Amino acid sequence: MAVRLGIIGLGPRAETLVAAMRDLPLIEVAAICDIVPERVEKMLSIFKRDGKPLPRTYADYHDLIADTSVEGVLVPTSWNSHLAIATEAMEAGKYAGIEVGGASSIDELWGLVHASERTGVSCMMLENCCYGRNELMVMNMVRKGLFGELVYAEGGYEHDLSEMALAVESGNERAIHNRFRRCDLYPTHQLGPIAKTFDINRGNRFLSLTSSATKQVGFEARAAAHYGHDGKWGDVRFAQGDVVTTVIKCARGENITLTHCVSLPRPYSRHARIQGSRGIWSEDCKGIYVEGVSRRETLLDIAGNPYEECHWDPVEKFYEEYDHPIWREYAKSGLVGGHGGMDGLVLSAFADAIRDGRPTPIDVYDVAAWMATTTLSEQSIALGSAPVAYPDFTNGKWMTRGRDATSGRFAL
Amino acid sequence: MAVRLGIIGLGPRAETLVAAMRDLPLIEVAAICDIVPERVEKMLSIFKRDGKPLPRTYADYHDLIADTSVEGVLVPTSWNSHLAIATEAMEAGKYAGIEVGGASSIDELWGLVHASERTGVSCMMLENCCYGRNELMVMNMVRKGLFGELVYAEGGYEHDLSEMALAVESGNERAIHNRFRRCDLYPTHQLGPIAKTFDINRGNRFLSLTSSATKQVGFEARAAAHYGHDGKWGDVRFAQGDVVTTVIKCARGENITLTHCVSLPRPYSRHARIQGSRGIWSEDCKGIYVEGVSRRETLLDIAGNPYEECHWDPVEKFYEEYDHPIWREYAKSGLVGGHGGMDGLVLSAFADAIRDGRPTPIDVYDVAAWMATTTLSEQSIALGSAPVAYPDFTNGKWMTRGRDATSGRFAL
Repeated sequence: MAVRLGIIGLGPRAETLVAAMRDLPLIEVAAICDIVPERVEKMLSIFKRDGKPLPRTYADYHDLIADTSVEGVLVPTSWNSHLAIATEAMEAGKYAGIEVGGASSIDELWGLVHASERTGVSCMMLENCCYGRNELMVMNMVRKGLFGELVYAEGGYEHDLSEMALAVESGNERAIHNRFRRCDLYPTHQLGPIAKTFDINRGNRFLSLTSSATKQVGFEARAAAHYGHDGKWGDVRFAQGDVVTTVIKCARGENITLTHCVSLPRPYSRHARIQGSRGIWSEDCKGIYVEGVSRRETLLDIAGNPYEECHWDPVEKFYEEYDHPIWREYAKSGLVGGHGGMDGLVLSAFADAIRDGRPTPIDVYDVAAWMATTTLSEQSIALGSAPVAYPDFTNGKWMTRGRDATSGRFAL
Repeated sequence: MAVRLGIIGLGPRAETLVAAMRDLPLIEVAAICDIVPERVEKMLSIFKRDGKPLPRTYADYHDLIADTSVEGVLVPTSWNSHLAIATEAMEAGKYAGIEVGGASSIDELWGLVHASERTGVSCMMLENCCYGRNELMVMNMVRKGLFGELVYAEGGYEHDLSEMALAVESGNERAIHNRFRRCDLYPTHQLGPIAKTFDINRGNRFLSLTSSATKQVGFEARAAAHYGHDGKWGDVRFAQGDVVTTVIKCARGENITLTHCVSLPRPYSRHARIQGSRGIWSEDCKGIYVEGVSRRETLLDIAGNPYEECHWDPVEKFYEEYDHPIWREYAKSGLVGGHGGMDGLVLSAFADAIRDGRPTPIDVYDVAAWMATTTLSEQSIALGSAPVAYPDFTNGKWMTRGRDATSGRFAL
């Protein structure tokens, strides 16, 4: 029997989620909700086109949350509303699935944590990149010991979204955040998989960070190029720096460097790097080096003195032996949904936990720790890059929780 | 007529410098000096083998500095001695060429600056990477405006030198620094070319930095693997973190992120990235993207909504049109010396300035600002990654000095 989900907020992200769920028999979209009637109509037309049963429709999200047939709620709404809605959904006993993003305050994260603890249902971030093939494989290799002791990681959200400068006019909330805030607004695509690999909240935790922002050029140039210097939309000032660099310290002694860069022209990268005492993966170098497996040679310099050189292996070389069991199993049955199959996997993980009444593989402590990065990055930048501390949202439980805090077929 | 240089300190780096100078008619090695007689003998045998005139030899570097026939002094000695020796050489009216590395105190840098200002001779760091083909070409593209307004840069010294753990026993000074200090010990290979491209000390300057170090695993594992846990060399503690991340803020609003990683197995990288409002170079991605030149295409996501994708051009694509004039000219006559021709170029730049009595292209203000990074990184890490400020070694002159502060054929 399918798990019955409701969707609150029917923007473009809801459309890609629905496209992924179309081919997931585990999930039935039982209800949809948006305050804008045209979005509801557009979504219904997609269900009709796909020959799917039509979901019940709501304009007020409180009504969808009160719908007793709905078991879990997806909340791809704006960054200013999704945490409050997810908190309400959990208080009504429903699993909440939120989209990626960062928090505006530490308080809204505590609210989420308390709601989940009080009710026993999960809040999961639908962080699809946790289910990316390479991210999963490297996690698998790390757990098998190939990378030795973990020491360092990097991640970035590097994606030319400078067109957002033109969305301020329409009140687009992501654009508004970039207009008014100066911080890593979008840390989780990279930080999610790193946190899972580093056992954050399960024997490890984020301790503190420093964050630094460059000046702002990209958004303002884009706006001026489009509108001209009109004293209005073409002269809007953006607080956001073009490149924000954040360095996080972990309790076990690892550091994580994050880069946020969405207003400059460049090819997309999540800039992934996972490094241990015996191995390293670099997305940008398209390679993995494992001591004793990858090639190391001794050469002579111009004066005849020897030096050593290590060589990357292509990432693909390791797929056959080290693909993660999750990827291996679901690749067999055909990966579904956008972003290379990651959307289908993350939605399946959410629904699978609801069906079994288990905690989701990404839980409320993960959500709180990851999303706090945005708020703390903003604070550090405001303080001239001074170090700021992460709250311990587990209240000490991170020291005794194991990775088995989440079981199930999609456990990370 | 050749420029007559003396060399103080005849270790392995001196050997590669001599190998590069063998084919540079502009330079005559007139004198060599080392406190260890075997090193002097070994160097003399290299001159004999190469059929070169034998230099005068000294055991005490004061005597070499006093040698009136020597016009400039190369000081590839240890990190604890080269700044003091360079200062003495300048006080004797001789140009000083020091090797790469970082400073132990801000005071030793002020000493260098004052000596150069008082005597009017230059102290140049022989930072060969400033003359790397890609570094030069990207600087050329930036100056031609292809990258738009500069915003951000990255650099790294990522090189598996974990064998240094075994050199502590012999008193190797670089190993000793890694044993006792926790900081970016070796910032200039990346920072030098970035600083030149960012006009540091010529309209721009380093303002402050934050620095963070991971735990130490690599050196200690290497020592234990070699010696066993012997309570002595196999149990030496290293203060150095395996990965040190430093973020520098510049007066014009750019940031620079540096990575120091010398104790973990991995392929070599200087991790270069130069990014502006219209273009980016990434060494690890082996690519350059320039808006309006490189390919950008519009694609559709799974729900049918459009998104844009930018594509890297290979770096080599730009050589024909944008190779730096320095590279172009010297490639014609054949590049000499190690490290892909960079050694020959940087030595030629030093000798060329001496011959003409001009300032060197990398001057004492550059040396001081670049090397201060090590000291300040150490302070920031000791303060829990608190931001610390760079001194202004130019005492305000950076605001009015232009790039033409250094002219000549090797100006950067």
